[in-house]
Amino acid sequence: MKISGRNFIPGKIVEIKEGATTAHVRVAIAGGTILTASITNEAVEELGLKLGESVHALIKASDVMIAVGD
Amino acid sequence: MKISGRNFIPGKIVEIKEGATTAHVRVAIAGGTILTASITNEAVEELGLKLGESVHALIKASDVMIAVGD
Amino acid sequence: MKISGRNFIPGKIVEIKEGATTAHVRVAIAGGTILTASITNEAVEELGLKLGESVHALIKASDVMIAVGD
Amino acid sequence: MKISGRNFIPGKIVEIKEGATTAHVRVAIAGGTILTASITNEAVEELGLKLGESVHALIKASDVMIAVGD
Amino acid sequence: MKISGRNFIPGKIVEIKEGATTAHVRVAIAGGTILTASITNEAVEELGLKLGESVHALIKASDVMIAVGD
Amino acid sequence: MKISGRNFIPGKIVEIKEGATTAHVRVAIAGGTILTASITNEAVEELGLKLGESVHALIKASDVMIAVGD
Repeated sequence: MKISGRNFIPGKIVEIKEGATTAHVRVAIAGGTILTASITNEAVEELGLKLGESVHALIKASDVMIAVGD
Repeated sequence: MKISGRNFIPGKIVEIKEGATTAHVRVAIAGGTILTASITNEAVEELGLKLGESVHALIKASDVMIAVGD
Repeated sequence: MKISGRNFIPGKIVEIKEGATTAHVRVAIAGGTILTASITNEAVEELGLKLGESVHALIKASDVMIAVGD
Repeated sequence: MKISGRNFIPGKIVEIKEGATTAHVRVAIAGGTILTASITNEAVEELGLKLGESVHALIKASDVMIAVGD
Repeated sequence: MKISGRNFIPGKIVEIKEGATTAHVRVAIAGGTILTASITNEAVEELGLKLGESVHALIKASDVMIAVGD
Repeated sequence: MKISGRNFIPGKIVEIKEGATTAHVRVAIAGGTILTASITNEAVEELGLKLGESVHALIKASDVMIAVGD
């Protein structure tokens, strides 16, 4: 499968926290940055996400902003 | 200023392409990944974005998906 | 590849209109509805999208609203 | 009321699951696809959403991606 | 029609700029803030948007961030 | 820090409701409108958000729709 979404960032899952309906999955990427993805609990279960697993974060280009300065 | 958005990824601008109203800004991040941000031309101009500039990509956690496998 | 995004809707491409940086791709789905996806020109080209091609529209659950009444 | 959002997909509600703050509403659309909308509990209550109710899923064009292949 | 999206902000259109596919519509709201909406040219035309028209900006709660400080 | 996101709306926090993973923060803006932001509990805590605090709602232009009529 190929996706029009432009941003695939490789990393490893370092935390999975399921809430009542919404889960937060943290992914360590190159350079020491930790990303947070807010997805459905159902997606966590259907994909069988596990700590330490290699995944990609996928982000549509129209959802990326640019920040400059501190 | 601090922002609730959870994902700040440091990088350098490697391409700026302005369209009629919408610009694509590419940012090289650690690990060799190039991100694409689709933002307004006006933001490019107001922030004075330049090739080679150090910036952060900012992404809200609810806009991040997880992809597994190839 | 499997994606955490919950909504995959099968259909056929009925129109591709590239702008300066942003393209609109229309996809006819079951029931006579035509969806519009606003994606980058680059994605149209990299995926080699063509009229009549069978594709899926992919939408993250947090981007779906519910409308009631007229 | 008319909305600039381009994608209105008719369907019927087949599941409503409220979490602590976020609800998942599933909508059966033509062709046998079930959509998932992640919305606030408050919206579920204010709109009085009910199982079996005819609704539309509403999605902004910039939130639709295209996937090709398997 | 009622929409699950939580944020309706009343205002008046003060600028419409159509690009090749994407339009920027600016809406003056209470307190002197000018909002920018990036929507399709097609939506501008189908809704017949005009300068000075009273409209609402509609934003899903999951698309709102909070910023503190300067 | 400057952000490419085009929409900063000043207001005061009037309610914070944390769920299992996702919080709803309500912000009163000029003209009597109350906005709802759905953000992570972690952001609420890291930013130390408090009732009555002056903040800005930040929204990317591509996440703003236009609604006309009733």
